[in-house]
Amino acid sequence: MEVSNIYAVILAGGSGTRLWPLSRELHPKQLMKIEGDYTLFQSAFIRLVNSVDDKNILSVTNVKLESQVKTQLVEMQAKFCRKSNYRVITEPECRGTAPAIALSIKYIEKLQKDKNIKEDPIIIAVPSDNLISDDEQFAAAIKEAVKLAQDNYIVTFGVKPDRADTGLGYIKTKNNKKIKDVSSCALKVDTFIEKPDKETAQEFVDSDKYYWNSGMFVFKASVMMAELKKYEPDIFNIIKNAEISSQTPTIPYLDFKEMPDISIDYAVMENSKKLAMVPLECDWRDVGSWEAIYAISDKDENGNYVMGNVIDLDSKNSMVYSTSKLITTIGLNNVVVVETEDALLVCDRDRTQDVKKIVNHLKERHDETQMTHKTVYRPWGYYTVLNEGKGYLTKCIYVNPGAKLSVQLHHHRSEHWVVVEGKALVLKGEEYFELNNGDSIDLAVEEKHSLQNPYDEPLKILEVQKGDILDENDIVRFEDMYGRV
Amino acid sequence: MEVSNIYAVILAGGSGTRLWPLSRELHPKQLMKIEGDYTLFQSAFIRLVNSVDDKNILSVTNVKLESQVKTQLVEMQAKFCRKSNYRVITEPECRGTAPAIALSIKYIEKLQKDKNIKEDPIIIAVPSDNLISDDEQFAAAIKEAVKLAQDNYIVTFGVKPDRADTGLGYIKTKNNKKIKDVSSCALKVDTFIEKPDKETAQEFVDSDKYYWNSGMFVFKASVMMAELKKYEPDIFNIIKNAEISSQTPTIPYLDFKEMPDISIDYAVMENSKKLAMVPLECDWRDVGSWEAIYAISDKDENGNYVMGNVIDLDSKNSMVYSTSKLITTIGLNNVVVVETEDALLVCDRDRTQDVKKIVNHLKERHDETQMTHKTVYRPWGYYTVLNEGKGYLTKCIYVNPGAKLSVQLHHHRSEHWVVVEGKALVLKGEEYFELNNGDSIDLAVEEKHSLQNPYDEPLKILEVQKGDILDENDIVRFEDMYGRV
Repeated sequence: MEVSNIYAVILAGGSGTRLWPLSRELHPKQLMKIEGDYTLFQSAFIRLVNSVDDKNILSVTNVKLESQVKTQLVEMQAKFCRKSNYRVITEPECRGTAPAIALSIKYIEKLQKDKNIKEDPIIIAVPSDNLISDDEQFAAAIKEAVKLAQDNYIVTFGVKPDRADTGLGYIKTKNNKKIKDVSSCALKVDTFIEKPDKETAQEFVDSDKYYWNSGMFVFKASVMMAELKKYEPDIFNIIKNAEISSQTPTIPYLDFKEMPDISIDYAVMENSKKLAMVPLECDWRDVGSWEAIYAISDKDENGNYVMGNVIDLDSKNSMVYSTSKLITTIGLNNVVVVETEDALLVCDRDRTQDVKKIVNHLKERHDETQMTHKTVYRPWGYYTVLNEGKGYLTKCIYVNPGAKLSVQLHHHRSEHWVVVEGKALVLKGEEYFELNNGDSIDLAVEEKHSLQNPYDEPLKILEVQKGDILDENDIVRFEDMYGRV
Repeated sequence: MEVSNIYAVILAGGSGTRLWPLSRELHPKQLMKIEGDYTLFQSAFIRLVNSVDDKNILSVTNVKLESQVKTQLVEMQAKFCRKSNYRVITEPECRGTAPAIALSIKYIEKLQKDKNIKEDPIIIAVPSDNLISDDEQFAAAIKEAVKLAQDNYIVTFGVKPDRADTGLGYIKTKNNKKIKDVSSCALKVDTFIEKPDKETAQEFVDSDKYYWNSGMFVFKASVMMAELKKYEPDIFNIIKNAEISSQTPTIPYLDFKEMPDISIDYAVMENSKKLAMVPLECDWRDVGSWEAIYAISDKDENGNYVMGNVIDLDSKNSMVYSTSKLITTIGLNNVVVVETEDALLVCDRDRTQDVKKIVNHLKERHDETQMTHKTVYRPWGYYTVLNEGKGYLTKCIYVNPGAKLSVQLHHHRSEHWVVVEGKALVLKGEEYFELNNGDSIDLAVEEKHSLQNPYDEPLKILEVQKGDILDENDIVRFEDMYGRV
C-alpha cells in the first residue's frame, strides 16, 4: 500500500506490570517472546507491514526502553523491509497512551510538513502486546477502518468476548446497529466501559451487545487533536506548544513534566461522539495477565499449562512456568506459579490482576526485582549477574559478533575477565590484547579498557568485579559506538 | 552419670526425603539447623550429654554422611565435653534402623570386650531428627527407661498425639495399664501401628489409648540381639559373623550387601513381647514432613508461616519458605512453598507426605537435585556452584581457617581463581604463592595444585573451571589432611 498519508504507531511504552516477574519495567512483556519466533512488539510490526508503507511505521516508547525497541526494530528491518530509517519516538517518562498518541500525532504532522505534504494524515495506533492469529482478517479490518477514518470517525476494533475477563475494557454497541449502509460492517458505539468486576463481565459476555476493546484505534490526526482539545485540554496544550525534533523525536522533559498520566480510553473514547467500531473477526488475544496467558495456552487433560523443568503430581487447572530451576508441584488447584532467576510468583488464578499490587509494593520499597532482571539487555548484547557478596560481584557477559562495549574506566572497582566462549579483543590502557577461549586478563581500578568482539562468533566472558563500591553508575565512558558518551 | 555400661547411639543415616528440597541425600535434615543454634543432630547430642557419659555417645550413619557427621560432632566436643574421641559407626550403604542398631550393638560389645568389661551394655538409641523442648523431662524419662531395660524390657517412648498425623507411627497401649507397681509410669504395649490413613489417625487421637511412637528405644544389648535372632535372623546372622574394627568402625561392604532394608519398628517392635512404653511428657516434635514443620512453626493471624524474603497478599494457612530469591504469594490457601537455590516445591498442605514420591522420581531420572544442593559440604569448608555452561563452570569456594584442600590435579580442566575474601596460600606446581584479596592465579590442565588457608580469617575464592569434561570425579589426589587419598 503506497498511500503515503497513512501512518502506523506501535505503542511500546508499557511496563507490563501484571506479567511480573517475567515482565520488568526495563524489559517489559512487549519486548519478550511469548509465542513463536518474534517478540510481541515485532509481531505487531510484521502485521502492519501488510497494511502500511514500512517507511510510515513508527513506534512510541519511553526513554528507558528506547535502545531495546530500536534493536528489535533493526532486526525486523533486516528481515521484512527495504532499508528504511525507522523512527522511535520517545517520551521522557512513562505516561498513559493519551500523551503517547498525542506526541505521535505531533511528530507525524511535523514529518508531513517537512515533506511539504498538505494531506491530513490517517493514523493507526496499535498496542504492542496483543496476539492476533489471522493477518489477512486483520488487514481487512484495518482497510475498513481507514475508510471510516477518512470520513472523520475515530475507529475502534471490538472482539467478541468468550469469557468474563476482568482485565479488559469493553465496548457497548448501540444494539449492534450498523454505522453506515450495508457495505460497511462497522457498528455504532454506545459507551466504553473500563475493566468491570466478575459479575458485570459475565453479564457482558451473556449479552450480544458487548465487545472487548482491543486497544487499537484508527483516526485522522486533526480529528483526534480536536477531541483532545475538547476533552483533555492539558495534553492538547502541552503538545501544541512543545518543540519536537524530527531527527531524535522527543519532547523536552520540562514540557512533559506536567503531562497527565491517562489512557486514550479515559481521555477520549469514553467521551467522544465520533466513534465507530469495526468487529475484529480473527483470533485476538490480550496477554495482559497470567490468567490471560493461561487462557491462550495449550493445556493438558488436567487443565494444566506447564513450561520448563517441571514435575507435577495431581495438580489441576494450574499454570507452572519455570525459566531456570526445577519446579515440583503436588496437588495444586487453580494456581499460577512463575519462576525467574531472582523472583517467584505463586498466585491463585482468580487473583492474577493483583500482581500489579505486588509490583507497586516492590516499587515503594525500591526493590530492583521490579525494575530489572538478573539479565540486563544492552545495545552490544547482555549480561547476567551470577553472584554478589561483600566487596565482589560476578557477571556473565555476552557480546554480539561485531559489537563493542564503550572505552571506559571505573573509579571504585577492578575487573577480572575469563573468556569462556568465543574470542575477545581487549583494550587495556593503550594496548590491545587478543584473548582466546580460556584466557584471562586483569583490569585495575582507574585503568581505561574496552571489551570488543570483532569476530563472527558470540563472545562470552565471566567477570569478577572487586571493590568497595560496585555500582553500574561507576562508569566513565570515553568512546561509545552506541552514542552513550 | 558415670555408669560406663550405658551407651547412647544417635541414628544419623536418614535421607530426610520428605523435607526435600531443603533436605538432600547428601545433606539431610538431621544435619541442618531447623530451630535454634544447633543442627537437629547436634541437639540430640546435647540432650544425651545429661544422661550418658560423653565418652559413650556414638553415632551411626552411612559412609556418604560420615565426614559431615564427624565435623558436627567435633564442634559439639569442643563446646560441651571433656576431650574425647567420638566414634562414628558407618554403614557402607543406607539401610533402615534395624541394621544400624544391630551394627551399633556389635561395635559396643566389641568396645566392652576390648576394655574387658563383662557387664551387658544398656543402649539408648535415638533418632537425630526430633525437636524436644524439655531436657529435664527427657533425662527423667531416659532414667526410668534404663531401669526397665535392666529388667530386660525393650523400652519405647510414647507422646500424646494432638493432631491426626499420617506421617508418624502409633503405639497402642493395653488400656493404659501400668507395667509395674506404682513407682513406674511405664505402660504395657499392645501393638505398634505404622503410618495410618487420615481417618484412622483421627480415631487414634480421639481415643486415649494411643501414643505417637517417638522412635527412641532403650534396651539391653543381649535382649535386642535375641529379638533380632528370633524375628529377623538375616540381620542377626550377618552381624554375628561380620568382623568390625574398633578404630574405624564399619562392616565390610560384602557382608553388608545382603542386609535387609528394614526399620527396627517392623523388624522387632511389631513382634516383640518384651515391650514397655514410657510416656514422654515434654514437647516432642518430629520434623518428618513440611506439614510437621508447619505444625510447629509460629504462624501469623492468618495462619501463615513465612521465612526469608517473602511478600504476601491475602494468603492463609500457608507456609512460604525462601532461602535465596524473592517469593511473592497472592491468595493462597493451605499451600506450602519451599524454595532453594536450584529447586522449588509448591504443594498442597494435605499432600506433604507425597514429597517422597517426587524425590523417588528424581532418583529414577538421576536428577542431581535429589542428591546434593548447589552448596556442597566438604571437610575443609564448602562450595557453591554459581553457573554452568558449555565448557565452563563457576564456583564460589569457602575454606575454613586452618583448612587445606588436597594436593591434586585434573586431567580435563584448567582452573582460574580470584580471591574475593581473606588470603590464600596456593601450591602451583612445586612453588607456593601467597594471594591477597583481589589477586588471581591460573592452574593449567595436569598441573599439580593445592588451595590452602593457613590464616585466621575465612577464605573465599571464585573459581572458573574450563574444559570439555567438568566432573567432580576428575581429581587425582596426592596428599590430603582428611585421609581422602
